[in-house]
Amino acid sequence: MSKKLNIVVAGLGTVGAGLLKLLATESAIIQARTGAVINVIGINARDRNRDRGIDLAGYRWFDDPLALASLPEADVVVELIGGSDGVALELVRTALTHGKHVVTANKALLARHGAALAALAEAKGVTIAYEAAVAGGIPAIKSLREGLAANEITEVYGILNGTCNYILTEMRMTGRAFDDVLADAQKLGYAEADPSTDIDGIDAAHKLALLASVAFCHRLDFDAVQIKGIRSVAALDIMYAEELGYRIKLLGVARRLPDGRIEQRVEPCMVPRKAALAAVDGVFNAVVLKGSFVDNVMMVGRGAGAGPTASAVAADLIDLARDIIPPIFGVTLDRLSVAPTTTDSTPTGWYLRLMVVDKPGVLAEIAATLRDHQISMETVVQRARNPRESVPLIITTHPASAGIMAQALAKITAMASVTEQPSAMPVMVF
Amino acid sequence: MSKKLNIVVAGLGTVGAGLLKLLATESAIIQARTGAVINVIGINARDRNRDRGIDLAGYRWFDDPLALASLPEADVVVELIGGSDGVALELVRTALTHGKHVVTANKALLARHGAALAALAEAKGVTIAYEAAVAGGIPAIKSLREGLAANEITEVYGILNGTCNYILTEMRMTGRAFDDVLADAQKLGYAEADPSTDIDGIDAAHKLALLASVAFCHRLDFDAVQIKGIRSVAALDIMYAEELGYRIKLLGVARRLPDGRIEQRVEPCMVPRKAALAAVDGVFNAVVLKGSFVDNVMMVGRGAGAGPTASAVAADLIDLARDIIPPIFGVTLDRLSVAPTTTDSTPTGWYLRLMVVDKPGVLAEIAATLRDHQISMETVVQRARNPRESVPLIITTHPASAGIMAQALAKITAMASVTEQPSAMPVMVF
Repeated sequence: MSKKLNIVVAGLGTVGAGLLKLLATESAIIQARTGAVINVIGINARDRNRDRGIDLAGYRWFDDPLALASLPEADVVVELIGGSDGVALELVRTALTHGKHVVTANKALLARHGAALAALAEAKGVTIAYEAAVAGGIPAIKSLREGLAANEITEVYGILNGTCNYILTEMRMTGRAFDDVLADAQKLGYAEADPSTDIDGIDAAHKLALLASVAFCHRLDFDAVQIKGIRSVAALDIMYAEELGYRIKLLGVARRLPDGRIEQRVEPCMVPRKAALAAVDGVFNAVVLKGSFVDNVMMVGRGAGAGPTASAVAADLIDLARDIIPPIFGVTLDRLSVAPTTTDSTPTGWYLRLMVVDKPGVLAEIAATLRDHQISMETVVQRARNPRESVPLIITTHPASAGIMAQALAKITAMASVTEQPSAMPVMVF
Repeated sequence: MSKKLNIVVAGLGTVGAGLLKLLATESAIIQARTGAVINVIGINARDRNRDRGIDLAGYRWFDDPLALASLPEADVVVELIGGSDGVALELVRTALTHGKHVVTANKALLARHGAALAALAEAKGVTIAYEAAVAGGIPAIKSLREGLAANEITEVYGILNGTCNYILTEMRMTGRAFDDVLADAQKLGYAEADPSTDIDGIDAAHKLALLASVAFCHRLDFDAVQIKGIRSVAALDIMYAEELGYRIKLLGVARRLPDGRIEQRVEPCMVPRKAALAAVDGVFNAVVLKGSFVDNVMMVGRGAGAGPTASAVAADLIDLARDIIPPIFGVTLDRLSVAPTTTDSTPTGWYLRLMVVDKPGVLAEIAATLRDHQISMETVVQRARNPRESVPLIITTHPASAGIMAQALAKITAMASVTEQPSAMPVMVF
C-alpha cells in the first residue's frame, strides 16, 4: 500500500503551474521511486481564470490563501507566491502555526524571515524545505545537507542568478552594452520589468545567504552579505577580460575564514577562462562546494524556469513523503552558531580599469598610490592613445583585500587625471 | 540523546584509511548534522602492520574478514577490499546473510553481482549503499534517487574514469604519445601497474551500468555495455581534435531510447570545446543527468582518492544513521524492468582519421563507400603531402549510428590504400 502525502499549492505562476504539470505527468515514477502518492488537495492563486496552459478543473480551488494554508487535511503547504513579505509571509506563518510542513521556492522570504520562520517551524515540529529557492533544479541544499554531510565546508560559491549570467554572456558574445542587452533580455522574458532584484545582485545574495547558513551551520545573516551587481560592467571590461584570459561572472562567494568569521560577497568577478565555471553560460547556474575531505564539487544546471524549479519543489515533497525531514538549516537551531562576519574579503588579485587622461605622469601617480597601500601590480595595459583625452588603463594586481583596494581606489578616484569611477573586480583563483 | 550506528570496516587501503581518518576528524560535524554517532567497532585488512599513516591501536582488529562481517553488534559492514569476486564478494554475502547493511565503493563487485546481492539484501530487509562506487565524491546516486527523483531520466553520461581523463589531458597539454603518458601516470600513482581495467574502459563501464540502472529503473546489465578504451587514441587525434574545436574525453553514455531500449556505451568521444564537460580535466570526473523536468544537471568532482571516496562512503553511513534506507537501485527490485538493450548507438556525427596512401583517387573511393552507407561527409582535411606514402585523412560526418559506421569502416579498412586501422570517434552534441 502506498503512503499518501496531501499537499496544497498557493501561487500558480510559472513554477506553480509547472509543479501541477510535473505531479500529473510523473506520478508513476514518483510512486515507483518513493512508494508514495502525492495528492494535490487544494490550490490558490490571485486570478482563477488566467490561462496557465493546464486544466484546473480537477483541483479544489480556494480564493483565500490562508484558508488553504490551514486546511485540516493538508500535510504540506507549497508556497509559490513569491515576495519577501505580504501574502507569502502570512501564508507560511499560517501553515507552520497549523503544524504543516512548508515547501517553498521563495529565497527573498527566507533570506529576510528564515530565522524567525525556522524557529516557529521547529516549535511546531515541522520543517521548511527550500531546495527550489537556491539554484533552481540543482540539488545544492540536499548535497550540502546529505551528500557532503561528512565534510566541514569551508567555501561555497557560484553563479546564482541566471538573468545576470545571461546578460554577461550576451555582452561577451555580441560586444553590446549592458543597457542594450538588458532591454533585449526583458523582451525575451529573461529579465523582469523591474530588473533590480536580479541585476543589483540581491537575488544572488538571498541564495548565497541560504547556502552559507547550511554550509557553515551558522545563523542566516542576509544583512552581512556584501553586494554589488552588474550595472557597472562595461563592454570594455568584457573585452579586456577576454584579452587577459578571463570571463566576467557575477559570483556569490561565501567562506568560513580560519578565524571563524564568515565572509559573504556577491560581485562581478574575473574567472580564468580555463576554469570549468567560466564555461557556465547563459541562464545556467553553478554551485561549487568545497569540503574538507571531498574537495571541490561543482554542480551546474538551470537556475530558474518552470521545469527545473518544479523538479526541486517535487524533490522536497518526495523527501517529506518518505519521512525524510532534515533540520531546516542542516542542523537543529540550537546548534547554529552566530558566527562573526566580515565586510572585508580574503585577498585576491584584482582587475582595474581606470579611465585616465592620456598624459605623462598619470601611471606613475596611480602606481605610487597602489604601492602606498601595499598593492603590487602584475600587468599594465594601455594601448589606446588619445593625447589629453580619456583612455582606458588596465591594471591587474597581486592579492589585496577588498577593504585595502577600496581605500586605494578612493584615492585614485579623487585624482584630477582619473575621469570616471574605476571599474574593479576581484580575480578568482580556484 | 544521540543515535548510534555501529560499523565495521573491511579493507584498509587508501579509502579505508581515509574513512577512519574522516570519521575521527569530522565526528562533531557529523553528529551536529545528523544527531548520530558513527562507531567503528571492528576493522580488518590483509596486513595489520602496514604503515597507513593512522594509529590503529584504538580499533578492535579482526584477522578474519568473515568473522568481522558477522559480528553481532555491527549494524553496517563497510566493504573496501575491492575486486569483483573473492574475499569482497564473500564478505558482502556474509554481511547480508547476517542481516547487516553493506556500504561499498566496489563498482566491479556490484556491476558483476549487484542484481544477485540486491535480491539477497532485499530478502533480508537490508540495503547495499554504493555512492562511493560511482564518481568518487560526487553525490550522483543520491541525486538520481532523491534530488531528481521527480524526473524521468532519459540520459546519463559523463567522464567516469579519472585515470583516462588524466592521460587524455596530459596528451593534450604536452603533445606526447599515449604509452609515454601512461608510463608517467603509473609512476605518479594515477594509473595502476596493470592499467587495463581503467584504460580499456572497464571501470567506466562498471560505473555506467550502475548509473543506468538507477536512472532508468532497469535491471543492472553490465554485459550490455559496449566498451572501447583509450589505447587507440593517438597524439595525432588529439591534435586534430583541437584543430576542429573538440576535446577527446572517454565518455560513458547511457540512454533510454523512445522505444524503451537501453543504450550503454563507453568510448572516446569528441566533445565540443565550448561544452562545460570539455573543461573537466585531469583526474576529475563529471556526471550529467538529463531529466524530463529539470533538463541537464552536471556534477563535477574528484572521482577517486582517499578523501573524496571516504566522503561518499560516510554520506551513505550518515543516511543509514538517519534511517534513510532507499531501495538499492532507486526502486524495489520488483519494480525494476528488464529493458531490452541495443548494441547500436543513437546516430551522432563522427570524427574519422584514416591513414591513406597519398595518391589520386583514394578520397573518391572512401567518399563513395561512405555514400553507399548513407553517411554524408561534413568536412575533409588532408594537409600533409607525402606522395605514395601514408598521410592522415581527417573526415567529419553527419549523424550515423555506430552500427552503420562500423560497416562502412570495415569496407574502408579493407581498401589497399588504407594503411592502418581507422580511428573513429563519435562527436557529442549536448
